[in-house]
Amino acid sequence: MSRATTQIRFGIIGCAEIARKVSRAISLSPNATLVAVGSRSIDKAQKFISDNGLPASTIPLAPYDAVLDHPSVDAVYVPLPTSLHVTWAVAAAKKGKHVLLEKPTALCVEELDVILEACRANRVQFMDSTMWMHHPRTEKMRELISDPTRFGEVKTVDSIFTFMADEDFLQNDIRVKPDLDALGALGDAGWYCIRSILWANSYQLPRTVVALRGPIKNNAGVIIACGAQLLWPDGRSATLNCSFLAHLTMQMTVIGTKGALHVTDFIIPYEEEKGSFTFVSDAGFTELVTGWVPVPSKHEVTADLPQEARMVKEFSRLVKLIKDEGKEPETKWPEITRKTQLVIDAVKKSVDNGFEPVDIIG
Amino acid sequence: MSRATTQIRFGIIGCAEIARKVSRAISLSPNATLVAVGSRSIDKAQKFISDNGLPASTIPLAPYDAVLDHPSVDAVYVPLPTSLHVTWAVAAAKKGKHVLLEKPTALCVEELDVILEACRANRVQFMDSTMWMHHPRTEKMRELISDPTRFGEVKTVDSIFTFMADEDFLQNDIRVKPDLDALGALGDAGWYCIRSILWANSYQLPRTVVALRGPIKNNAGVIIACGAQLLWPDGRSATLNCSFLAHLTMQMTVIGTKGALHVTDFIIPYEEEKGSFTFVSDAGFTELVTGWVPVPSKHEVTADLPQEARMVKEFSRLVKLIKDEGKEPETKWPEITRKTQLVIDAVKKSVDNGFEPVDIIG
Repeated sequence: MSRATTQIRFGIIGCAEIARKVSRAISLSPNATLVAVGSRSIDKAQKFISDNGLPASTIPLAPYDAVLDHPSVDAVYVPLPTSLHVTWAVAAAKKGKHVLLEKPTALCVEELDVILEACRANRVQFMDSTMWMHHPRTEKMRELISDPTRFGEVKTVDSIFTFMADEDFLQNDIRVKPDLDALGALGDAGWYCIRSILWANSYQLPRTVVALRGPIKNNAGVIIACGAQLLWPDGRSATLNCSFLAHLTMQMTVIGTKGALHVTDFIIPYEEEKGSFTFVSDAGFTELVTGWVPVPSKHEVTADLPQEARMVKEFSRLVKLIKDEGKEPETKWPEITRKTQLVIDAVKKSVDNGFEPVDIIG
Repeated sequence: MSRATTQIRFGIIGCAEIARKVSRAISLSPNATLVAVGSRSIDKAQKFISDNGLPASTIPLAPYDAVLDHPSVDAVYVPLPTSLHVTWAVAAAKKGKHVLLEKPTALCVEELDVILEACRANRVQFMDSTMWMHHPRTEKMRELISDPTRFGEVKTVDSIFTFMADEDFLQNDIRVKPDLDALGALGDAGWYCIRSILWANSYQLPRTVVALRGPIKNNAGVIIACGAQLLWPDGRSATLNCSFLAHLTMQMTVIGTKGALHVTDFIIPYEEEKGSFTFVSDAGFTELVTGWVPVPSKHEVTADLPQEARMVKEFSRLVKLIKDEGKEPETKWPEITRKTQLVIDAVKKSVDNGFEPVDIIG
């Protein structure tokens, strides 16, 4: 086989801002290539291709169906507003296209289940586009918190993602529109917090979710800031805070019985080439409690590729296994997606029911 | 006046572990001197003096009253269990001794008010022993979050203090005993979190406090882990998490509209000689959202003296103003103490009433 045929051929459905980053990631990934960009008009698709310096061979297509019908497309990346996910992810799966889907993946788990069932039935790979999962730093952090000697067992996780949206965003962005991304800050920023909490808890779902008080909604009823607490039957707990109304912060603190992990740029690393975090194990104080022994160590992990390119690479690897070797789709990714969506739904329900606890039924 | 008479003369009431650190701090503070150590027996007091290498001139005294009656004692440091604070702080004030009181300052605000009224009536200085307030880093952090251009207005604070108590602590420490430090982890670790939240909010009390779900109590009913949310009428919020059951973590994150402050050792700096934190203002992302611009800056502040010695120095400065210049006691410190205690009480009440919101009436 020539190199070209070993690459997974992507089509993008929708020229969202985030598609610029992912189109570059597809170009950077050694096992992927971008073949088509679909928009509501050919002109828009062509403009996206030109504006982003994509290869002249990239095919502009319209409407979205044209991407799904194109025989050269193996997989689609879908950065459309959340309300359109179920329609287009299902349509893609039915056409045998593998689906890399932007987050939040659906407006609720019932919708997501329709997507996942379509992917399963059509034997296509599903993965949500949560890029930080694929940074080599994430692997290194997993290694440390999985070590019973150095970390013990997880007790609590605290995860924050806030950014200060400007007036234009708060009026016009799809993430504040009830007919587009109705989950607002919870679906956008909160998605990462919830994923990080599940990640730190080895994807074991909490039993109970309780929204914190004081969520902020816009005039259309979309959440633009909220928080929640997650509880496990064995006493583990976690808190999350997501907001469009406070300065950029993206931190995760995972505290175990014997160690603690801390990262302050877990979603978008400060620099593309590397990611750092601190870890400390068995820390105490000097004799007179005037300092720490030991102090937390800084760990730095170099990224061979940007995390989003690593995501595309991993997704493409799985697609290739299905395509070339007849393997079944990897179920880990849709399972993680579904758990994240379940918690999102529970937070929203608790916000809506006046901060009553909501039990999660996985 | 000779140098000796310009120094404030301390007596310590109770040979607690923390008194070792504070006796050193008194020695290090240029305007303070330790003259007496009181215990329940002379032998214990003498042993404390010898074990900690205190000057041979330090007078061992017993029982505690002997310290209050000693004419060479200007001020007392009281590290007794919380349940004894009201008795001994009031007794000290009535004898005209200035009071540096360990935290938590009282079992409830009603008790604290008795202490504060005794100090007021007897014109003695009151200060609680919250050491990090006095680190020069704290001043520097205040400067940054007070800057409307760089920080904007505070929106949310997240404060965590956990440490992993060993079996001996969990069975025998005064902080798990209902007749000694009945506020448990809330009074011990939670005190610092609440203080940091108030500090970041310029000591404006929240209107409402809600305990998080899942607090853990020991068999005697003492809280050994809990969390809470604080809410202000203008939409500001804060969360705290304190525990004796998770690895050492002491972090404060203060997020404003235009900047964010982050410190991971705010209570006990990693090293005695300096303290650091990060601050970032007006951060956004690179064009393709592949990195931060700017990244947070690390600020490092050198401490001329350990923070506890600076605390003693500030307390002694205020005492000297009263003693030598006829000034009134500084009211800032007892006011801050009282606000902290009010929030402690509200968290406890919310834990006890099943996580219902508790309104704060300052």
